[in-house]
Amino acid sequence: MGAVAATPKQDRSRATRRRLLEAAVACLAEVGWAGSTVSVVAERAGVSRGAAQHHFPTREDLFTAAVEYVAEQRSTALRGLPGRDRAAVVAALVDLYTGPVFRAALQLWVAAAHEPQLHARVVELEARVGRETHRMAIRLLAVDESAPGVRETVQGFLDMARGLGLANLLTDDRARRERVVHQWTTLLETALPGP
Amino acid sequence: MGAVAATPKQDRSRATRRRLLEAAVACLAEVGWAGSTVSVVAERAGVSRGAAQHHFPTREDLFTAAVEYVAEQRSTALRGLPGRDRAAVVAALVDLYTGPVFRAALQLWVAAAHEPQLHARVVELEARVGRETHRMAIRLLAVDESAPGVRETVQGFLDMARGLGLANLLTDDRARRERVVHQWTTLLETALPGP
Repeated sequence: MGAVAATPKQDRSRATRRRLLEAAVACLAEVGWAGSTVSVVAERAGVSRGAAQHHFPTREDLFTAAVEYVAEQRSTALRGLPGRDRAAVVAALVDLYTGPVFRAALQLWVAAAHEPQLHARVVELEARVGRETHRMAIRLLAVDESAPGVRETVQGFLDMARGLGLANLLTDDRARRERVVHQWTTLLETALPGP
Repeated sequence: MGAVAATPKQDRSRATRRRLLEAAVACLAEVGWAGSTVSVVAERAGVSRGAAQHHFPTREDLFTAAVEYVAEQRSTALRGLPGRDRAAVVAALVDLYTGPVFRAALQLWVAAAHEPQLHARVVELEARVGRETHRMAIRLLAVDESAPGVRETVQGFLDMARGLGLANLLTDDRARRERVVHQWTTLLETALPGP
């Protein structure tokens, strides 16, 4: 918030923005990109269409900002995780890819494959979120990225987590996922020097 | 083809069906589910809309059959792969997830998350294709699935391959992927008893 206190008007504006971002993510996750418009999100957030467009001039602005916002919130939450217990860290990292935030990001990602006006925005967003997730994984797993193979081991593990997220999109894959994660935690213990 | 020779009419019908299936996969991969209709595919395949609907009464019939058809073709191609070279097997399995067939399947999969008439079809299709891919991976890697942890190690590896496919959707991720696959081939060598 900085050193200067926000005025009530600024507070209201921030609250409106936050409501729009949260409604946008929920909308994407539930109805997909084709059904996710600024109007639908504004109504869901209880905000006028004009106010929504004041905050986010285009549909692309709204939805990329929304996915970035929730990704940042999750990063902040994970930062508080104690890094001692490897199994807990691995489980928390996999959890990043199995909830509504990943579902929303996936809808945006897949739409960007054939919507040119979305493509560049999502590529940039995913690079930023991907780098941040990788940095956080390295820190939480308490490993030294300069050691040979460590970076690629962690990257491959995060790719696996993303694949597990995809496998969870249409069915509840929890039971299988828990067995896979248990086994891969053991493999990571062997592959990565302990904290 | 069975023991009885096909008539010229049956041959033509099969060729039409194949053209429709191949056009459907290319269309899904390029323009996504929203833009993929029976009419668009019929035109692309040089087939009348009526003929297309004779083969595939609904849009869901056409696109699920198309993804299944190409998945089967890839399985057949992989069956010829010699299982001796682990690195080659790992690379071939990862390749399943980085081309147009995976892009098409992904579009269908993500659309199914919020299209009820597609959901059950895609769940069933993915279960069938997933089981077949897993069986093939076990055979090509020449591992014994009854040994503790082997099934989950292979499943996690296929989840990783799926995640690598997703990472390749919007950008050419080949250079990073090759480093990750190289490292994980080494880790899998340790985790899986050799052939």
